[in-house]
Amino acid sequence: MSKLPHIGTSIFTVMSKMATDYQAINLSQGFPNFPIDVRMTEILARLAKTDIHQYAPMAGYPPLLEKIAQLTLDHYQRKVNPSTEILITAGATEAIFASIQAFVQPQDEVIILDPSYDCYEMPIILSNAKPIRIALKEDYSPNFEAISQHLSTKTRMLILNNPHNPSGKIWTENDFIQLEKIIENYPDLLILSDEVYEFITFENKHISINTREKLKDRSLIVSSFGKTLHLTGWKIGYLIAPENLLEEVKKVHQYLVFSVNSLAQASINEYLTVFDVNEVAQLYSEKRNFFKHLLKETAFDLLPCEGTYFQTASYQSISDEKDVDFTKRLVTEFGVSTIPLSVFYGDQTDLNRIRFCFAKNDELLLQAAERLLKIK
Amino acid sequence: MSKLPHIGTSIFTVMSKMATDYQAINLSQGFPNFPIDVRMTEILARLAKTDIHQYAPMAGYPPLLEKIAQLTLDHYQRKVNPSTEILITAGATEAIFASIQAFVQPQDEVIILDPSYDCYEMPIILSNAKPIRIALKEDYSPNFEAISQHLSTKTRMLILNNPHNPSGKIWTENDFIQLEKIIENYPDLLILSDEVYEFITFENKHISINTREKLKDRSLIVSSFGKTLHLTGWKIGYLIAPENLLEEVKKVHQYLVFSVNSLAQASINEYLTVFDVNEVAQLYSEKRNFFKHLLKETAFDLLPCEGTYFQTASYQSISDEKDVDFTKRLVTEFGVSTIPLSVFYGDQTDLNRIRFCFAKNDELLLQAAERLLKIK
Ligand SMILES: CSCCC(=O)C(=O)O
Ligand SMILES: CSCCC(=O)C(=O)O
Repeated sequence: MSKLPHIGTSIFTVMSKMATDYQAINLSQGFPNFPIDVRMTEILARLAKTDIHQYAPMAGYPPLLEKIAQLTLDHYQRKVNPSTEILITAGATEAIFASIQAFVQPQDEVIILDPSYDCYEMPIILSNAKPIRIALKEDYSPNFEAISQHLSTKTRMLILNNPHNPSGKIWTENDFIQLEKIIENYPDLLILSDEVYEFITFENKHISINTREKLKDRSLIVSSFGKTLHLTGWKIGYLIAPENLLEEVKKVHQYLVFSVNSLAQASINEYLTVFDVNEVAQLYSEKRNFFKHLLKETAFDLLPCEGTYFQTASYQSISDEKDVDFTKRLVTEFGVSTIPLSVFYGDQTDLNRIRFCFAKNDELLLQAAERLLKIK
Repeated sequence: MSKLPHIGTSIFTVMSKMATDYQAINLSQGFPNFPIDVRMTEILARLAKTDIHQYAPMAGYPPLLEKIAQLTLDHYQRKVNPSTEILITAGATEAIFASIQAFVQPQDEVIILDPSYDCYEMPIILSNAKPIRIALKEDYSPNFEAISQHLSTKTRMLILNNPHNPSGKIWTENDFIQLEKIIENYPDLLILSDEVYEFITFENKHISINTREKLKDRSLIVSSFGKTLHLTGWKIGYLIAPENLLEEVKKVHQYLVFSVNSLAQASINEYLTVFDVNEVAQLYSEKRNFFKHLLKETAFDLLPCEGTYFQTASYQSISDEKDVDFTKRLVTEFGVSTIPLSVFYGDQTDLNRIRFCFAKNDELLLQAAERLLKIK
């Protein structure tokens, strides 16, 4: 009788709950634990007194659409039309869901690159289409040979995630050149590019689809103010796409949520006049370095982290337990909650790797490190 | 190439935009134009300074879930388990979308009663199922004979809207008894009961599915804080359903938005300790009476309004234009924007009726009435 018999509870809910149950340090679900900027608190208090509390326009609060257009111009030298090429969504998750549902038809195929964030598959299944899950290489770079082999006229969409959650991997110029080549003969293939960590990158420069002339006309680009502004609970994301594509997504969005929290949109709009999104990379670069430094003495082997606020690590020198079991033990015995990477693979590939979220204040990171030092 | 070629822009967006373009009085899209309660402003300003800005739990902010359980007990003497039978959603629209997508399979049929609110059809179409649109009688009471004729084992869901938007009609005890009888032999049929105006009813008592012993185990009941608390822009709705049904909806919700604005949820939770939802009926009852009084001298024939903040009217004595044309002329020539009812019918049935929203301050209602008096 269930339409979705295989769908369980998201790993983020599971591990956050375990963290609470065992009073563990929560480095699993990705969210910052530091306080909101006082400038934002003031904006909220001020706007609360205005008449901003009724429906926002369906596509978004117009001044915020303008701000996003400006951000896109400043960062990617791409000129987008705020009234036709941007849609503000109930978090990046809704942007992804609506994009998939707007285009993917029964029997279509959608390529997902594993390990993949856990919200991509469901809207494909609900569309009665087929997710094709292709593993990234062990260093989390795309395997173009494997992708090529699975491309066909049935492939309606390819989902990228760059910077990549959970690994932090960033696509290189060469990756894009290869992608552009292999999809050249599939003009109907759409790209859904999840770039919610676009502003959280370190030594290597993030290349957005916004800057790829050969790709942007067939791409839907997802971003998130929750990640960029440390407000994951506000659930404000957005989508950039050419008008002909965005029109179709708006049809779904219009009857899915109609519009998005107006006070949150107006507050973010004002905040962007005083906050420079470039500060975010600096903040998280310091946190990453600090966390890496703290973990140096532990038995974990840290993998590269080029972006996002996640640090992946191998625990192979500690144990050969399944990662799901290892993370459970980490919470219950050592008081640190993390995310096992096997849950992000369609076939539960287990490389004995886990993910830490370092979007935390130094005190908590220190405390976590002390606990992690005890694991041999 | 479009998956949804027939979907246009929602009538609410169209008419609100016309209102702006022609500087007309907007009595079309349903939202209050009066300011938010100062107690809520204070709550917002205070909570803005707390750490409420990260992800809420997937099913909702636990204290608010408790409040909703209490509300349901107080109003309907129904005991619901806050942690398994309530889901907080990104507005009632998301609750409706997720409920339909969680259960409706390709080839299934879903019964909708016309004139019907415009967000019901799309999620059915996206599920590759078939909407069966059955007209209410001219007085907007359900036509059980017609419903019976269309019931079959293919009917997965029946969508009710009570109090009914646009007509304000409330289901009677006898209506429910008849419904209970005709669906007795279809145990797999689910009911999606859109009760977003549950607290805005007047002389006749609203009967919620929450109180129907024979129905509640197969029902998903949708409500909306946006309507009840005059905060349509916040997009906070909720769903009440037995655990076995709600579990399925949560699977969709989890990957559709994951969770809902945490600051809004926490603020509503606090506000419900000082605000009595029963005040709402009083407020709108006075507005309805005032508006009815104002329109008495116009050429419109007012239809009964048992609930909601909408007043329907026939303009048959003024014109035999199509309602879509009449409402356009009303904006452009007379400066009042309203909603034509034919857009809520699958077959555009046109009874020469329109809908006014009276959730406005007296001054605006007065001004609108002055303009409407000029139409003969
Ligand atoms: C929606 S909860 C998960 C947050 C997140 O993006 C992550 O932890 O990867
Ligand atoms: C989502 S905009 C429409 C508001 C409303 O419920 C109505 O006007 O009927």
